[in-house]
Amino acid sequence: MPMQFDPPSGTRDFLARELETRERAFALIRSVFARYGFEPLATPAFERLDVLMGKYGEESDKLIFKILRRGEHEGTGEADLALRYDLTVPLARVAANYGSQLPVPYKRYAMGPVWRADRPGRGRYREFTQCDLDTLGTSSAMADAEVVCAVHDALAGLGVSGFRFLLNSRRVLAGLLEAFGVPAGLGPGVLITLDKLDKLAPGEVAAELTGRGLPEAKAGELVAAMTAADAAERIRDALKSSEEGSAGLDEVDSVLSLLAGQVPAERVDFTPRMVRGLSYYTGPIWEVVAEGVPGSIASGGRYDHLIEQLGGPDVPGTGGSLGVERILLLLPAAGDRHTRLDVAVTVMDARYAAPSFGFAAAARAAGLRASVYMGASGKLGRQLKWASDQGARWALIYGGADEEAGTVTVRDMTSGEQNAVPVSGLAGHLARLGRGAGAAGAG
Amino acid sequence: MPMQFDPPSGTRDFLARELETRERAFALIRSVFARYGFEPLATPAFERLDVLMGKYGEESDKLIFKILRRGEHEGTGEADLALRYDLTVPLARVAANYGSQLPVPYKRYAMGPVWRADRPGRGRYREFTQCDLDTLGTSSAMADAEVVCAVHDALAGLGVSGFRFLLNSRRVLAGLLEAFGVPAGLGPGVLITLDKLDKLAPGEVAAELTGRGLPEAKAGELVAAMTAADAAERIRDALKSSEEGSAGLDEVDSVLSLLAGQVPAERVDFTPRMVRGLSYYTGPIWEVVAEGVPGSIASGGRYDHLIEQLGGPDVPGTGGSLGVERILLLLPAAGDRHTRLDVAVTVMDARYAAPSFGFAAAARAAGLRASVYMGASGKLGRQLKWASDQGARWALIYGGADEEAGTVTVRDMTSGEQNAVPVSGLAGHLARLGRGAGAAGAG
Repeated sequence: MPMQFDPPSGTRDFLARELETRERAFALIRSVFARYGFEPLATPAFERLDVLMGKYGEESDKLIFKILRRGEHEGTGEADLALRYDLTVPLARVAANYGSQLPVPYKRYAMGPVWRADRPGRGRYREFTQCDLDTLGTSSAMADAEVVCAVHDALAGLGVSGFRFLLNSRRVLAGLLEAFGVPAGLGPGVLITLDKLDKLAPGEVAAELTGRGLPEAKAGELVAAMTAADAAERIRDALKSSEEGSAGLDEVDSVLSLLAGQVPAERVDFTPRMVRGLSYYTGPIWEVVAEGVPGSIASGGRYDHLIEQLGGPDVPGTGGSLGVERILLLLPAAGDRHTRLDVAVTVMDARYAAPSFGFAAAARAAGLRASVYMGASGKLGRQLKWASDQGARWALIYGGADEEAGTVTVRDMTSGEQNAVPVSGLAGHLARLGRGAGAAGAG
Repeated sequence: MPMQFDPPSGTRDFLARELETRERAFALIRSVFARYGFEPLATPAFERLDVLMGKYGEESDKLIFKILRRGEHEGTGEADLALRYDLTVPLARVAANYGSQLPVPYKRYAMGPVWRADRPGRGRYREFTQCDLDTLGTSSAMADAEVVCAVHDALAGLGVSGFRFLLNSRRVLAGLLEAFGVPAGLGPGVLITLDKLDKLAPGEVAAELTGRGLPEAKAGELVAAMTAADAAERIRDALKSSEEGSAGLDEVDSVLSLLAGQVPAERVDFTPRMVRGLSYYTGPIWEVVAEGVPGSIASGGRYDHLIEQLGGPDVPGTGGSLGVERILLLLPAAGDRHTRLDVAVTVMDARYAAPSFGFAAAARAAGLRASVYMGASGKLGRQLKWASDQGARWALIYGGADEEAGTVTVRDMTSGEQNAVPVSGLAGHLARLGRGAGAAGAG
């Protein structure tokens, strides 16, 4: 039976070009988060099974990759470890384990693979990168606003165009239910339905609300208020009647006033109908939408009890997650030509191996990517073809005539122009090329 | 039962300080490898079970972390996937899968975690980082020498001191057995024993050789030749009688002549008694030893049939591996003070939250790490204590007097010196501080 050579279902190999694009994006994100004083955290790929199970709900528990016990216990078919499913449960464990060693507030980012045994599909993987930043230990709206600013700067830095923050608060939503007289028992269901206003027609949403038991008039009134051109204003008015709603509005306004000057006003909208699916949020919530992209590319909010629920200490928290896999799809594609080398050095004859090796070293010393030809052909045309395949900008050619003249021929691979450079002057010449080549050399 | 909060046995959490040290080292290694034209490769954390099993020998197979089948198959207790055990088997799979898409030769590096269910111990982990670079598809000694040069530059760049390459060739070893008339059947055992010459006394090694069935006189002769002050010369002479040995010497000399000028001569020794445990090597082999460190910190060699044996195509290969976990222990420790922030901004009163937020943004725009105080205290002393705990070099203080005067107080956290800077001039002032702070800001 032939062996399969593709990576396991739902996983990917990353060859150089794609990997370099990913790593560049990840490095930019890291540097933005670091500038905000968020510090990195890395936890193991797997956790004890009991740390993960029961934290994500029954359906998600089934998607956890479990690791078989080893040695004499392997035969039991039992698992004792499992691949991490997200970066939040490990954060809760870390907060519990290192308590006093961590600064207060603890501002950390984490970026790395997580694993979910989901059915693989278009853009849905079993191994994918998550990127989270969170601040634990403060209830300040400054922490909420800081996360939003950092996510904004990361998206802007990556070159994502036409993105916008939708901002709301869980307390606004609670106040909304109160203000419109929605019975407490219907609340969660009503919010789930309202969250569909960006996908369904208002009439469909109203019908679904009625189906959930809301009187028809009330359902119509609610949908009308949420979809009006001046929805934010109408909801603001309606919320004044609710204590919880007023407190929620204050939260939203605090965050908005901190964002002023940091995030362009046209990139943030108070969006009362934005619900966020997850039930653990307790305060400000937000998501980022981008033109022409269904769903969100980043999201987050305040979750003041989640860390404790996940087994960590009782600390308030707020954070966000960049949907890096989706965001990577939005970035401008790299050029067609993949630059493996800046400088390709020919080896026209075995006796030139050592000097050619030295020329490549001189190019590297100038900060350029350089290597020698290692194929079997002694033909210049074949070696230059190799140089071109490597994306090299310059080829260094050294043959009999060069040896006699004490020169190296430097060929510009784009123009085909060639210059004989004295061996003694090569280092300086390469240094000048290196400065011209800018940052490309260092990888 | 209380939950355990430490990471699973044999794994580690990396908090900011240690993680930053690791990432800096990894980034340096990557940039060195890239300068040699090696390109990065990343493969999934897990592979199909059949890709891994039977590749490492029976004992090692037991150390593979197996992943339980999911869904309806979970009850069977069977595994279908397993965490990767090294980076070489995935390389063989990638070489088989992407054949014609890969350049020839294919020069790649990979750096990432691998997992082994070894008994955890001092410096032995179940999740640890491996770092490999390999060149597939060429038999040229230039490829062997290039790997050695790249490893040399990486170690030198990391600041590892007193390291040295021991260079040998499998063919030298084969020639040695021939030259000393060791019966073919005893060869592998004799090499295993000779490899102990750096740990055992010559007499002990000779005794072990005799135990393996070598005549006492021959054993003594062999050990004497290997341990003589002029061992390399004596072995060179002895090898002349063997065709295989002569070919091996030529290999060693080819690599040495390419290294001349790239790797200081005192850092490479032809070391005929250096065996390397693994049986798959076919040509030049090398390892790196460092002063005061038992064992090797890097190693590698040519393995012209391994990729095929591992299920890949029949291509020659040569490569090396940096023992990054061991190397990290050798690096100078970072200073005691951990710089989370360059600039810490006080928030003396809730009404200064927005301007303070803006000052932090200005500092970040100048490339500095900056954040605002988010604690509950309105006392300057407490806020400066926080700034100091963050390792901040400057604090920006903004209070009532500043508001009236239109200034921000910039405090040098080392000297305690304070300057009132006009708000309008703050960006320029911070830019000057940023230039002085150099690269520290960008993380």
